[in-house]
Amino acid sequence: MDESGFIAALRTLPLHPGAQDLRDDAAVIEIGGEALVVTHDAIAEGVHYRAGTDPADIAWKLVAVNLSDLAAKAAEPIGVLIGATLIQRAERFVEGLRDVLEAYGVKLLGGDTIAHGGPATFGCTAIGRATVRPVPARSEAQAGDALYVTGAIGAAMLGFEAGDGAAYLRPRPLLAEGLALGPHVHAMMDVSDGLLLDTRRMAEASGCTAAIEFDAIPFAQGVSDRLAAARWGDDYALLFTAPADAALPVSATRIGTMLAKGAQPLLLDGKSPPERLGYEHR
Amino acid sequence: MDESGFIAALRTLPLHPGAQDLRDDAAVIEIGGEALVVTHDAIAEGVHYRAGTDPADIAWKLVAVNLSDLAAKAAEPIGVLIGATLIQRAERFVEGLRDVLEAYGVKLLGGDTIAHGGPATFGCTAIGRATVRPVPARSEAQAGDALYVTGAIGAAMLGFEAGDGAAYLRPRPLLAEGLALGPHVHAMMDVSDGLLLDTRRMAEASGCTAAIEFDAIPFAQGVSDRLAAARWGDDYALLFTAPADAALPVSATRIGTMLAKGAQPLLLDGKSPPERLGYEHR
Repeated sequence: MDESGFIAALRTLPLHPGAQDLRDDAAVIEIGGEALVVTHDAIAEGVHYRAGTDPADIAWKLVAVNLSDLAAKAAEPIGVLIGATLIQRAERFVEGLRDVLEAYGVKLLGGDTIAHGGPATFGCTAIGRATVRPVPARSEAQAGDALYVTGAIGAAMLGFEAGDGAAYLRPRPLLAEGLALGPHVHAMMDVSDGLLLDTRRMAEASGCTAAIEFDAIPFAQGVSDRLAAARWGDDYALLFTAPADAALPVSATRIGTMLAKGAQPLLLDGKSPPERLGYEHR
Repeated sequence: MDESGFIAALRTLPLHPGAQDLRDDAAVIEIGGEALVVTHDAIAEGVHYRAGTDPADIAWKLVAVNLSDLAAKAAEPIGVLIGATLIQRAERFVEGLRDVLEAYGVKLLGGDTIAHGGPATFGCTAIGRATVRPVPARSEAQAGDALYVTGAIGAAMLGFEAGDGAAYLRPRPLLAEGLALGPHVHAMMDVSDGLLLDTRRMAEASGCTAAIEFDAIPFAQGVSDRLAAARWGDDYALLFTAPADAALPVSATRIGTMLAKGAQPLLLDGKSPPERLGYEHR
């Protein structure tokens, strides 16, 4: 059973209404007139980071990728819970946690540690307070919307190829940008598994076809293999749609248009995209 | 760095006020006039369960141990997020999730999967709604309180020794009992790492000394090594204190008394307890 089969099986379980059929990166819990946004991402040695990585960078990335999911929901972080393998140089892990918590004004809520002999794994649950209702979702794109991305694509790939540069090791969750965009977007999500793959997911969730103009994608300086960069994850840019005439409060690049649902969910310069669009667990 | 050293280092980080200085099993988030209780526990193959265990039992235990933490807070479960290694027979894992979610009326909120080559690890974040304010904590025992435990101690140990019996593999979180006890208790926690160790933790958190009468402990039928059972975790009984004259809404056994803080936090029949009290990660 691969990742998509496993998630399909999970969809047969009793789901919380705020889980959005497990088709989003975060769930929404309505309580006391407020809405909480909750998300959980896990990372493993050898999959999400190389063996030998400074534990401070592991901790940063663990928290940052979860905060990025809150950013895509225009949620203000409340705190995080951490599940951590007890590793060598755990004091460096704590220092990385301190860096990322202080950088984004986030508090530690709790967690758990386990000592086991295998490759280290870490989990993080991030909890935030929604600032916009309905909470932005990847499923809310509408035909006719313009498709935008913040920042640049490919910096994480370059960082990885250069031997774990900062863009790969210490991604920056775009919390301020997400909060500012919240009232203006129809659909929003972060780019974690590859721009093309994540765009297709947004189109599928919204019942649209996304038409991307490849030359419009804002690639990071130094990217030579642009298709590879468009398939690479880890940039944690925000991908969103908005009415084409919307005045946006943050700088973003229009990379395409959402169309009425066609024969396929993603078009690249009007044609079928390559088969492999990004990163999927097997 | 061992588990206690790691947790001590985490205490130097920016902590959420509801994290209770990381001295409890769950954190409390006040929002919209309500209080949410959040907890995260992780389990690993070879540590919390034997290799070869039916994945359905792994899933049950993963969720049950987290629901037990909600029970000790008198919280009504809202939902859980699951972080799961993609394992063989993942469909059995999903069936175990279905069993435990349906048994306790809990919803799946979301989660994440990772594929990696090492021993499987799983994390669960459980979120519940507080029904009593202040939310019961392990730190609220008062000198003069009676010390109680629900259910019987040692059934999980017998189950483990017998080759993974149901009491070990499928512990029952005492959610209904916790909800009923909430308005009556001073301190409450679940017994996950051993009755003696967890009692000492409650006494330390409360600034008391706990005096246990060993013969009063309600051991499960069939327990011959009673000291071993009192040091064994996994029973997920509820340990709580209440005024000695309180009328309790659920059946519980008085096993001792909370005293003003003395030279040591735990007395067993008036004397020092053995050095090893329960299970701690090293």
